[in-house]
Amino acid sequence: MTQRDLEDRIHDCGRRYVATIGDERPSLFNKSAWTGKLMDACMRNERFKVQLFRFIDVLPYLTTMDSFSRHLDEYFGSEESLPAVLKWGLRGLGWGGTLAKSAASAATRKNLELMARDFIVGATASETVARLHTLREQGFAFTVDVLGEATVSEREADAYVAGYRGLLDALGQAQRGWPALGGGSDTLDWGHAPRINVSVKPSALFSLADPADVEGSVHGMLVRLVPLYRAVVALGGFLCLDTEMRRFKNITFELYRRLRADPEFRAYPHLGLAVQAYLRESEQDADELLEWARRETLPISIRLVKGAYWDYETVLARQSGWPIPVYTVKAETDAAYERIAEKILRNHDACHLACASHNVRTVSAVAELAHTLDVPAHRYEFQALYGMAEPFRKALLKTTRRVRLYCPHGRLLPGMAYLIRRLLENTANESFLRQTFVEGVERDRLLESPRAVLARVAAEQSTRAPARESGGDAAFRNEAFPDWTDAAARQAYASALGAVRKAFGRTYALSIGGQEMGTGDREPSVNPANPDEVVGVVCQAGPDEVERAIAAARNAFPGWRDTSPSARAEMLRKAAAAARRRIFELAAWQTLEAGKQWTEAYLDVAEAIDFLEYYACEMRRLAAPRRLGAAPGETNEYFYESKGVAAVLAPWNFPLAISCGMSAAAIVAGNTVIYKPSRSTPVVGHTLHQIFQEAGLPAGVFNYVPGRSGVMGDALVRHPQVGLIAFTGSMETGLHILEVAGCTLPIQSAVKKVIAEMGGKNAIIVDDDADLDEAVPAVMRSAFGYQGQKCSACSRAIVVDAIYDRFLERLMDAARSVRIGPAEDPAYFMGPVIDRSAQERILGYIGLAQQDGRVAFASEVPKSKGFYVPLTIATEVPPDHPLAQEEIFGPVLCVLRARNFDQALAWANATRFALTGGLFSRTPSHIERCRRELRVGNLYINRGTTGAIVGRQPFGGVKMSGVGAKAGGPDYLLQFLDARVVTENTMRRGFVPFEELRSAGGTMHGQSDGGVRSGRDIQ
Amino acid sequence: MTQRDLEDRIHDCGRRYVATIGDERPSLFNKSAWTGKLMDACMRNERFKVQLFRFIDVLPYLTTMDSFSRHLDEYFGSEESLPAVLKWGLRGLGWGGTLAKSAASAATRKNLELMARDFIVGATASETVARLHTLREQGFAFTVDVLGEATVSEREADAYVAGYRGLLDALGQAQRGWPALGGGSDTLDWGHAPRINVSVKPSALFSLADPADVEGSVHGMLVRLVPLYRAVVALGGFLCLDTEMRRFKNITFELYRRLRADPEFRAYPHLGLAVQAYLRESEQDADELLEWARRETLPISIRLVKGAYWDYETVLARQSGWPIPVYTVKAETDAAYERIAEKILRNHDACHLACASHNVRTVSAVAELAHTLDVPAHRYEFQALYGMAEPFRKALLKTTRRVRLYCPHGRLLPGMAYLIRRLLENTANESFLRQTFVEGVERDRLLESPRAVLARVAAEQSTRAPARESGGDAAFRNEAFPDWTDAAARQAYASALGAVRKAFGRTYALSIGGQEMGTGDREPSVNPANPDEVVGVVCQAGPDEVERAIAAARNAFPGWRDTSPSARAEMLRKAAAAARRRIFELAAWQTLEAGKQWTEAYLDVAEAIDFLEYYACEMRRLAAPRRLGAAPGETNEYFYESKGVAAVLAPWNFPLAISCGMSAAAIVAGNTVIYKPSRSTPVVGHTLHQIFQEAGLPAGVFNYVPGRSGVMGDALVRHPQVGLIAFTGSMETGLHILEVAGCTLPIQSAVKKVIAEMGGKNAIIVDDDADLDEAVPAVMRSAFGYQGQKCSACSRAIVVDAIYDRFLERLMDAARSVRIGPAEDPAYFMGPVIDRSAQERILGYIGLAQQDGRVAFASEVPKSKGFYVPLTIATEVPPDHPLAQEEIFGPVLCVLRARNFDQALAWANATRFALTGGLFSRTPSHIERCRRELRVGNLYINRGTTGAIVGRQPFGGVKMSGVGAKAGGPDYLLQFLDARVVTENTMRRGFVPFEELRSAGGTMHGQSDGGVRSGRDIQ
Repeated sequence: MTQRDLEDRIHDCGRRYVATIGDERPSLFNKSAWTGKLMDACMRNERFKVQLFRFIDVLPYLTTMDSFSRHLDEYFGSEESLPAVLKWGLRGLGWGGTLAKSAASAATRKNLELMARDFIVGATASETVARLHTLREQGFAFTVDVLGEATVSEREADAYVAGYRGLLDALGQAQRGWPALGGGSDTLDWGHAPRINVSVKPSALFSLADPADVEGSVHGMLVRLVPLYRAVVALGGFLCLDTEMRRFKNITFELYRRLRADPEFRAYPHLGLAVQAYLRESEQDADELLEWARRETLPISIRLVKGAYWDYETVLARQSGWPIPVYTVKAETDAAYERIAEKILRNHDACHLACASHNVRTVSAVAELAHTLDVPAHRYEFQALYGMAEPFRKALLKTTRRVRLYCPHGRLLPGMAYLIRRLLENTANESFLRQTFVEGVERDRLLESPRAVLARVAAEQSTRAPARESGGDAAFRNEAFPDWTDAAARQAYASALGAVRKAFGRTYALSIGGQEMGTGDREPSVNPANPDEVVGVVCQAGPDEVERAIAAARNAFPGWRDTSPSARAEMLRKAAAAARRRIFELAAWQTLEAGKQWTEAYLDVAEAIDFLEYYACEMRRLAAPRRLGAAPGETNEYFYESKGVAAVLAPWNFPLAISCGMSAAAIVAGNTVIYKPSRSTPVVGHTLHQIFQEAGLPAGVFNYVPGRSGVMGDALVRHPQVGLIAFTGSMETGLHILEVAGCTLPIQSAVKKVIAEMGGKNAIIVDDDADLDEAVPAVMRSAFGYQGQKCSACSRAIVVDAIYDRFLERLMDAARSVRIGPAEDPAYFMGPVIDRSAQERILGYIGLAQQDGRVAFASEVPKSKGFYVPLTIATEVPPDHPLAQEEIFGPVLCVLRARNFDQALAWANATRFALTGGLFSRTPSHIERCRRELRVGNLYINRGTTGAIVGRQPFGGVKMSGVGAKAGGPDYLLQFLDARVVTENTMRRGFVPFEELRSAGGTMHGQSDGGVRSGRDIQ
Repeated sequence: MTQRDLEDRIHDCGRRYVATIGDERPSLFNKSAWTGKLMDACMRNERFKVQLFRFIDVLPYLTTMDSFSRHLDEYFGSEESLPAVLKWGLRGLGWGGTLAKSAASAATRKNLELMARDFIVGATASETVARLHTLREQGFAFTVDVLGEATVSEREADAYVAGYRGLLDALGQAQRGWPALGGGSDTLDWGHAPRINVSVKPSALFSLADPADVEGSVHGMLVRLVPLYRAVVALGGFLCLDTEMRRFKNITFELYRRLRADPEFRAYPHLGLAVQAYLRESEQDADELLEWARRETLPISIRLVKGAYWDYETVLARQSGWPIPVYTVKAETDAAYERIAEKILRNHDACHLACASHNVRTVSAVAELAHTLDVPAHRYEFQALYGMAEPFRKALLKTTRRVRLYCPHGRLLPGMAYLIRRLLENTANESFLRQTFVEGVERDRLLESPRAVLARVAAEQSTRAPARESGGDAAFRNEAFPDWTDAAARQAYASALGAVRKAFGRTYALSIGGQEMGTGDREPSVNPANPDEVVGVVCQAGPDEVERAIAAARNAFPGWRDTSPSARAEMLRKAAAAARRRIFELAAWQTLEAGKQWTEAYLDVAEAIDFLEYYACEMRRLAAPRRLGAAPGETNEYFYESKGVAAVLAPWNFPLAISCGMSAAAIVAGNTVIYKPSRSTPVVGHTLHQIFQEAGLPAGVFNYVPGRSGVMGDALVRHPQVGLIAFTGSMETGLHILEVAGCTLPIQSAVKKVIAEMGGKNAIIVDDDADLDEAVPAVMRSAFGYQGQKCSACSRAIVVDAIYDRFLERLMDAARSVRIGPAEDPAYFMGPVIDRSAQERILGYIGLAQQDGRVAFASEVPKSKGFYVPLTIATEVPPDHPLAQEEIFGPVLCVLRARNFDQALAWANATRFALTGGLFSRTPSHIERCRRELRVGNLYINRGTTGAIVGRQPFGGVKMSGVGAKAGGPDYLLQFLDARVVTENTMRRGFVPFEELRSAGGTMHGQSDGGVRSGRDIQ
């Protein structure tokens, strides 16, 4: 059959189908019903839609009428201004008149619950079973999906599985009374399909799933999935693995293959897997799955969907600097869907197809393709969403006969999260349902081949102007995050670790003025996970070397200062390129010398690259002199100039990023640098030297001078030739530097400039309506990521009383779930702290918590020589206690119980520090208050407090957290520069260049037409 | 006669006239001659024109072939790239081939001299007399103008007059042999006009002319003019006063009236005055002159010109913030010319008219008007420029019969400055000569009535979009400079001085938290010109008051911080309005308490207003949060927040401006201020308090706390509640503050921020080709303005050997010319220094100069109790001597003789300070080198080093001159603010607002068309 014939048949099928739907509208778009009114309002008003979705999102947490009313007000304004749609059905009750607020709220709440009931098949097992029974009587098969909160701990994973077990028991009972659909005499619907069918989300099976750790993740999921599947099999049921976000996709596919090939289940065919057509890589995936099935001679089943995470995948990719993994034009997805469906249908012997779509074109295409390819009826079926499109599913049933409804099960309000996605999809501009039922797009247009649509779109786009990048500095792009779903990336990291370990034990000399300079005084640098491993042996500078380094920097200064800013910027870009080439290796050094986990270490290098690129861009921006004033006859140029010799005193916790940031800023601004790496990470520090060397930085511009703080610190800070000190570290050291630098010696040529980033005692406020699905993992990462050794780390969780118990319980469950071990193994959430003294200091604070408060949780630590400390959660600590006031710099979190939001905010501000802060809340007024009143350098709303990104979240604090402008931000470079103004009088003998006069509004000059006047000299 | 009839006759006349010109072209536009080629090149290429004018400007200083060649290279590139026109006539000599560079230069120089000879009637008296004789033989009368350098001293004024005297002697001799023109039998040309006629520039008669001091200026001019006029009268000659720049116009008019009405000369009618039609006020002026003539029954003579300072007047007005005083459309000037001419012709009995124009329309209109009004022939004549338009003047003579040529006399190359103006005018787009001889504009168009032209222009403009202000911050405008030509302004200042003096002796209390607070400890503040005058008695703060003030500022802080930035900015604008209302009074307080001259004091208040307005604009700019990053799903807002309590420690030398600038910046940024005025100017400091009070600033935001530095300084700086110290003053105090503030006390909540503007030891380099006409007055003003008591003051003039003697001689002449006395009298260039200790310190330095160098000049000082010191010029001081290294802060200038430019530059940089610097040079490469290598905060090229203007010349230095960003510049406010970033995760359950996705490049969302997928929680 030709393509045209097939298209004709698809159109015929589609027309019949649409005719079957008739004039019936789904409740979603039925404006005489409340849900329809709401959707109608959403489609008309984007802002209302956002507010409604956000309100529905917080709804499950609004357990009191008071909080419900308050949120209703906050999201939609006061009763008077409440959108008419929300008042619907209330008029009789006197809304806006004398009705008590609580009654109005109660009515709205009721409406919302009713709406949820349209989409959720049942809240209890018995409700669900009864409803499924009815559906079956109407001729529909089902698959059940158990709704729930996010799985942030192993206990929650257990609970998720338990939910299925309970439901399976009920279904098992019920199915005895269920005749098979399609009138078959056996127990299989339509003669081939199990009556019980469940859909399972793999990410809910294991709280520690991580793309970097495929094996561990698959294993963690299997542990819970196998018994569950065994129970399904025992009932003769079907289990389908949902495919969720792309980052878990490969893990899910691997999970599917393991389970399908498990000797216990090989013979049992009823195991399915979802494939998402919107992913660009899905065609390849489908090919591989089909090939696998043939190779293993194991028939498989694929539920082909279009994909429900488009926003998320797009946002994540954009935020991570990745290529967008999904198609950006809907018709591309539709076309891919048809191609994949055809692949599967052509392999129907090896793979059963569940065609899951509401799109008439898609359904018709699959139906006609199957027909054309003579695919037996039992090798494919159609699926639709429960509650979403009633007229559609009936028509679908008439047209295709084998229809399975995807039925969410669970409590109504918590299930609202599910609703959100559904509503979002179906009110999107290109939603098939919206187009069909709202916009009344003409039938043939709806049935148009996606290839034809694409051709049309392409033709339209070619006539438009090319799209331009909007926002931000067009020239600067953040380095991409690691994508551990990529096996090559995982392999590269593992190889780099091996290579780095082979390079252990080398000796590192100083580099001064371009010369390697060894010293007799040497110190080993060790792997904190195994102090017996010597990462490198590092020469230590003495007073002579400090003097030499300053002299070298001083000598290099004039030449470097006079190098053009763009040439200096180019040098940074070359260094960035060098770092990019070696990114895995550079990260691996950090994993082994600083105990940084894969992602943390990779992002540290990425941040170093970002600093190089960003400051290069910034220098180019600042290098262009600014013309001030508009008066003719003078030019005023405002520009910046280098300051001199800079001492860069770096910390160990971001051993490359912060070292590189401070150095790069100083260098690109035309200063020369004496770089003292931290004593704990001198080998990583040496990699910075290597990068600059590879870039070809002139000798003496960057001098690598490791050494003891006692020997070098004051000597550098006090030295009259050092004009600039850039420091990141503890408050105590920072203040000492400021004090020393504040004394200007008579032989000094300039007052010293000190840039000091110091400590933090950062709080995350957890409001009573915080989304704990997000707050718990965010606090976990913020408090314990890299063992809490970040100045941005959360060390206080200030939790509003009403949610305190739930938060703490889930947090402790999450804490119990994680594992501790060497950072080089991605299975471990937490690793060792940096050294023995840190270990002792942190253990001291934990002792203090035991003494003055309560240690609610302290994890086991590995039995090893590594510098491990327990992940610790302290409670019942007074907010002014040293534990809640001093920077611990380790994995110790104080959870404070605040009476209310006001108190939480007051406590959050009540420290000497003001670096980062966080808030989890879904109360707009609280968000707004924190924005203004939680006075920290970097405030994060509804996300964790760590991981600031160059250019996006310029980083730095106030109060005792630091002095100076934010790193990675638009004011940072100014600190390394002095501004100058050059004013030139351009008028000579009363004459100014014409251009200047014109720009000043003059229309002409020379009024005299040769009048008899001689010019005298002008003053 | 109707207007139309008159127009017809004007056109007839014009046609005859043009016919008479025929095809002859003036040499200026004759492209077969060198001058014509040059002009042609200028008209084609604006850049070449600029370079040529600049080269001609410097030409007189190029006394060696070497410097001539070097400049030729610098202005026009190497020999190879030299524009063809400059090589003209050299080809035969082998230019570009083997010809020695010096020969080529010599030829070019010769060409330029020949060109000058076209426009300058003679270089010596005998040359001039001979040439004038020839002109008379051709039927032309003449007026002679003696060219010369600017008059920067009284000796030069004497020399100017002497030049005329010499020429008059020669002319007197010669006229005996001159028959009268027009064939009359007596000695008068045409029966009524003296044969000898000279034009005199009043500004050259007196070096200290100042619009603020009309009486003194007129007197100073009369002293030299009367004897000169007496000599002219003795020869039966005519003298015409040229009107020059507008700022001297009223003085010139007054000078004319005094001389005309002088009993000695009343009976002698031959005294003329020039009136410039391009000035908008000239019609009014003409009316007043005619009325005066009638009232006094003294016939007068007016030379009506269009005006030759259009560029200058426009630039000056734009730079000064004044309305443009000249017409901006040429036809407006032409129309005004005809109107004024008509006025005069209608009053021909009282006023003789000299119509000075090359414009055929203008000349025709005047001729026909005179004819129509029956003006007798002896009551008007026509004038043209010598050398500018030969065919024109012949035609003019034929048409009008009475033509006088305006003949410059003087040395050729120094006369080049004159040439520049002439060339400029006649190659301007709207020049009549250019239109006639180059562009060949059709005759009738050239004869069109200016009214008709204006109507056409207006019609064209109404169809265009309205013009927009370009450049700079549109919202901010500098306060206008004082315009002392305005009698009302002069009167206002004088009245304000009287009113202020009446308010002397009051007692000033502290103002803390909005409450007046007196103390028993009081100090008088005196008039430095007369210490017996007590300006005010000022309460002094003790330790208690300091604590109270800090508490008040602390209490006011939260409310003020939380006031919106725009409301804070509005408060500044109200304060600016208050200051503007009282500007003369506020200035007068400074004159009497700080010894500031009128202009200096007025500009100090204007600068205060500028700071208020500029920081208000800046705060509005900075208040808008910046959205960073373009990734969807998060918003990153970068914004600024207040720091806390600021101590503002102010100096006395800009007692309002700097106090106000530091305070306004702190306040608008949301901080609260404790303001300690200088002990020497507490009453001016109180006016700042008044301004803020008038603006309605909330209590406690600005606290006026005068007191002793010893009591208050450290207490404020050290206080843990003071977060910010803004200081302007000496280096010693600044460094002490930095040291004290560098120690952070344990109870402090933040590291202290110190902004310190300190001293300077500023140099002006005078290059060997510096324009001394400009350099000498600029050094005078920079070194001795306000007695040298500015941190920006020039205290070193570093003069390149080749020009040293000429510079020093002219500078010393200028110094000898100025007078010293109370600042309240504008006759005095210099006043007293601030107090007795300053007087003693400065006298000490002068003693040092006598001891270790040479006091080349020290002025007399008034015999008075005032704190006067001599204006002092020291020479032969080694560049590393304390006199050349330490800040003297008084009217003591070291003139250093540098071997060459390199040495001058090295010396300029060789101090601990780096505040301002200057260069006078016309060597582009030297200008460029200084721009890069004269490393000072504010570098001024070819102008003085003082008088930085807010927004145009942000002010501040580096090295020991200061810490912090430039005041009045775009980075200044940042110092008073802390940056914060608020990052909000806007994604909930995978959903982001559509707008964000779209801006991130997403074309749609909701790919699933209701695919059977449920959303799980997104991490």
